[in-house]
Amino acid sequence: MQIAMIHDRIVPMDQLEPAYLDRGTFFGDGVYEVVRSYNGKIFALDEHLERFARSLAAVEITALDIAEVRSRVENAFAAAGIPNAKIYFHATRGSAPRDHAYGPDLKPNFFLTVTTLSDASHEKAAGIAVSTYPDVRWKRCDIKSLNLLPNVLARADAARKGCAEAIFVDDAGLITEGAASAFFAITAQTLRTAPLKANILPSITRKFVLRAARDIGLPVKEESFTPQFAASADEAFIAVTTKDIVPVVKFDDKTIGPGSPAVRLAGKPGKFTKLLIEQFRSFT
Amino acid sequence: MQIAMIHDRIVPMDQLEPAYLDRGTFFGDGVYEVVRSYNGKIFALDEHLERFARSLAAVEITALDIAEVRSRVENAFAAAGIPNAKIYFHATRGSAPRDHAYGPDLKPNFFLTVTTLSDASHEKAAGIAVSTYPDVRWKRCDIKSLNLLPNVLARADAARKGCAEAIFVDDAGLITEGAASAFFAITAQTLRTAPLKANILPSITRKFVLRAARDIGLPVKEESFTPQFAASADEAFIAVTTKDIVPVVKFDDKTIGPGSPAVRLAGKPGKFTKLLIEQFRSFT
Repeated sequence: MQIAMIHDRIVPMDQLEPAYLDRGTFFGDGVYEVVRSYNGKIFALDEHLERFARSLAAVEITALDIAEVRSRVENAFAAAGIPNAKIYFHATRGSAPRDHAYGPDLKPNFFLTVTTLSDASHEKAAGIAVSTYPDVRWKRCDIKSLNLLPNVLARADAARKGCAEAIFVDDAGLITEGAASAFFAITAQTLRTAPLKANILPSITRKFVLRAARDIGLPVKEESFTPQFAASADEAFIAVTTKDIVPVVKFDDKTIGPGSPAVRLAGKPGKFTKLLIEQFRSFT
Repeated sequence: MQIAMIHDRIVPMDQLEPAYLDRGTFFGDGVYEVVRSYNGKIFALDEHLERFARSLAAVEITALDIAEVRSRVENAFAAAGIPNAKIYFHATRGSAPRDHAYGPDLKPNFFLTVTTLSDASHEKAAGIAVSTYPDVRWKRCDIKSLNLLPNVLARADAARKGCAEAIFVDDAGLITEGAASAFFAITAQTLRTAPLKANILPSITRKFVLRAARDIGLPVKEESFTPQFAASADEAFIAVTTKDIVPVVKFDDKTIGPGSPAVRLAGKPGKFTKLLIEQFRSFT
């Protein structure tokens, strides 16, 4: 008799819940999105659904209707009644006995949660410390897939160092992005971040950060840079859907700040970062 | 109220089955093994448990006792009563609301299946076709993790080309391994396969193949080689736990075989490959 075992409980295969045969678990064979709401309104849902559609197409999960995903997101958000909510959703290729190969009949699994956003006000006001980690991820990080083990390992390494985020550095010695964020530095009154041609996710928050920079008249250079450059920047921050802009005040144990203490105190969120946070707020 | 949604069914978060909050699904945050039995006897269980322990340690999943895993494997195998069985098992870091960061209290999830091995006798007798695919995987393929989306995509690409396996080629133009197998070529009466220092899994079947080669007096070179070298080899095969040795008779549409048809017919399993299959059988 074909059987499954969950912890030490034996279950006949034909009585097993489909959740245990999810290709999302066997292979990370799925893609996801995280959106948030500000005061009862979902932010940038169109952009997130567009990216979700691109991710689905890239991994050839075809039998999922984006209009239906949208209505599920909206229905779940309404049902939860949480004004400042984090909405996570993923689709996997479906449930079947484990086999790399898959047939055309597989029905995607859809899963979503609506939870209360954790309060990021302290991090946003005080800034966070970050540490670098080798970018050992796969070469298609433009796809928002469920293959996130390197991100988990990087974040665990950061946590051991007392840091809130890990910043990936590729084989060329250049920063790509954070484990769950985009990374930015400000030097010589110019905002810098890696170009999207690098092996990074087309971050939606990044897009709004660049818009905010234009709005406040801060020049932008989409060019890769090194950890040394970042550590000696005047300002740095990460951008992530759930918290938008979070200042970075320590980079691999080096305090971020301009050369002259007369300009502002090092180790505090910078002037332009604060302006960008303000400007971002106007979008939401 | 914090909620989850499974397809379009809303479930309060506090009533959600832990299987839906498995970090294996959210992040591929887990590791796995596949073992098989031959005629009622599990093959190389010690080796697989050792590798499982190494994978667990590499991703720092610590709260799992290997002796207990062994007894679960043995109990499940006995309960299933399948003489030629495929035994798959994985452990994930545990179930919790989605967050890259994890606490020390998380209890690993263990999951196992015992299923009937599909019959590989036709493939072993006739050989298979394989096709190449860029090795876009992460840089820690020595860890047998649940991050297998590139392997799934590679196998889907192979299937579209009428091939049974995809062979990864790295940025240097060298073959690493198959999507779910080790890859070998035989040229000038020498067996060649990528060294374990390449970004590949320390395959247990590979180890037994190398032992079989020594036993039949076939010299071995653990050196990386190109797809061009493989396509012009006298013989080629893949090695995988569930099927041990499977001859490769077509490589990217090129028929594998020696230069002179007098030696043997091209497009058929080769002489040494057959000897290795025989020798491998003696181990089981």
